[in-house]
Amino acid sequence: MIPKRLQELVEALRILPSVGEKSAFRMALYLLDLQNENPQKLANAIINAKENIFRCEICNGLSETEICPICCDEKRDKSVICIVERPSDMFAIEKNQKFRGVYHILGGLISPISGITPDKLSLSLLKNRVETGEVSEIIIALGFTGEAETTIYYIQKVLSGFSLTISKLAQGLSSGLEIIHADKHTLNQAIDNRKIISKGNI
Amino acid sequence: MIPKRLQELVEALRILPSVGEKSAFRMALYLLDLQNENPQKLANAIINAKENIFRCEICNGLSETEICPICCDEKRDKSVICIVERPSDMFAIEKNQKFRGVYHILGGLISPISGITPDKLSLSLLKNRVETGEVSEIIIALGFTGEAETTIYYIQKVLSGFSLTISKLAQGLSSGLEIIHADKHTLNQAIDNRKIISKGNI
Repeated sequence: MIPKRLQELVEALRILPSVGEKSAFRMALYLLDLQNENPQKLANAIINAKENIFRCEICNGLSETEICPICCDEKRDKSVICIVERPSDMFAIEKNQKFRGVYHILGGLISPISGITPDKLSLSLLKNRVETGEVSEIIIALGFTGEAETTIYYIQKVLSGFSLTISKLAQGLSSGLEIIHADKHTLNQAIDNRKIISKGNI
Repeated sequence: MIPKRLQELVEALRILPSVGEKSAFRMALYLLDLQNENPQKLANAIINAKENIFRCEICNGLSETEICPICCDEKRDKSVICIVERPSDMFAIEKNQKFRGVYHILGGLISPISGITPDKLSLSLLKNRVETGEVSEIIIALGFTGEAETTIYYIQKVLSGFSLTISKLAQGLSSGLEIIHADKHTLNQAIDNRKIISKGNI
């Protein structure tokens, strides 16, 4: 007794992440209930975004132009590339307005078990950038997981032979975290990577 | 540095219930990442549902035709009307395949504080149905909340003068629970134990 097009809308909404059948049903009924232009706007926004947002030919980030605004920006330091997994990571770093280099979006992390082999990532694009000779520093801004460690190792392999400074993000206690709440691996890393704050005679 | 159309998609997704900025952002990036037809399907499903699902002229339920399949069905007992708040409540009762009468969808509950006055509900449509003389029993299947109690009281007032058996669902529903969240057995019990609140000439 559920109208066919309502059922279709429920199924279509279920493609969204973390949206199960109950949530999709609630969303569908909510959209049908709305008496304004918002549902039409949502449909248009999906189509517009899909049709007009591409991958930047340089950094593989999201862009409405062939080359994204950051890669076009003459004020950004093109000799420093920050490698991230996804566009959302780039947006998170940009939000802080501190990093002035450019980015490279991998598009994933190596995970053979999930079928993500190195060729699925934008690694040859990265190598091309480094080959221009304009890059002197690479900051690998990936998370603190097994897949990230594998990917960092592989990036180093891809970039071996180039004269570069390669760094990865510091691993240690997160801001506001008390020692007692840190997990074993974080605590070990924090101790191993301890920062000397004074030395010798104080 | 976030592409304009991505930002627009994030804002459009935020109209969905329980979707905050972070979720909307995650959903938008997920849609952009998908390399299949699903995002287009979602956009089409929204438009199709909005353009082709109307309110049934008899029961005010969702329908792709002027009169919904339940109101058209000759096997349903038109003398028993089950009043529900929303279409989702009707679907929940239908799922149990037990009730063989017809429905009336109010479209909300009286709640002056939220601006939902009796004239916002489909009460005159309900009165018209009763005036045909074909209806002998009304089951008010609203939740167990203050607004529901107010609405039940008002429905009784609207239907005073008609010879009807009016019942409300048994208070087997826990306090604060909405129909859509009740489990099958609770819902069946509540229908079986409905409490007659007036009978015959009121």
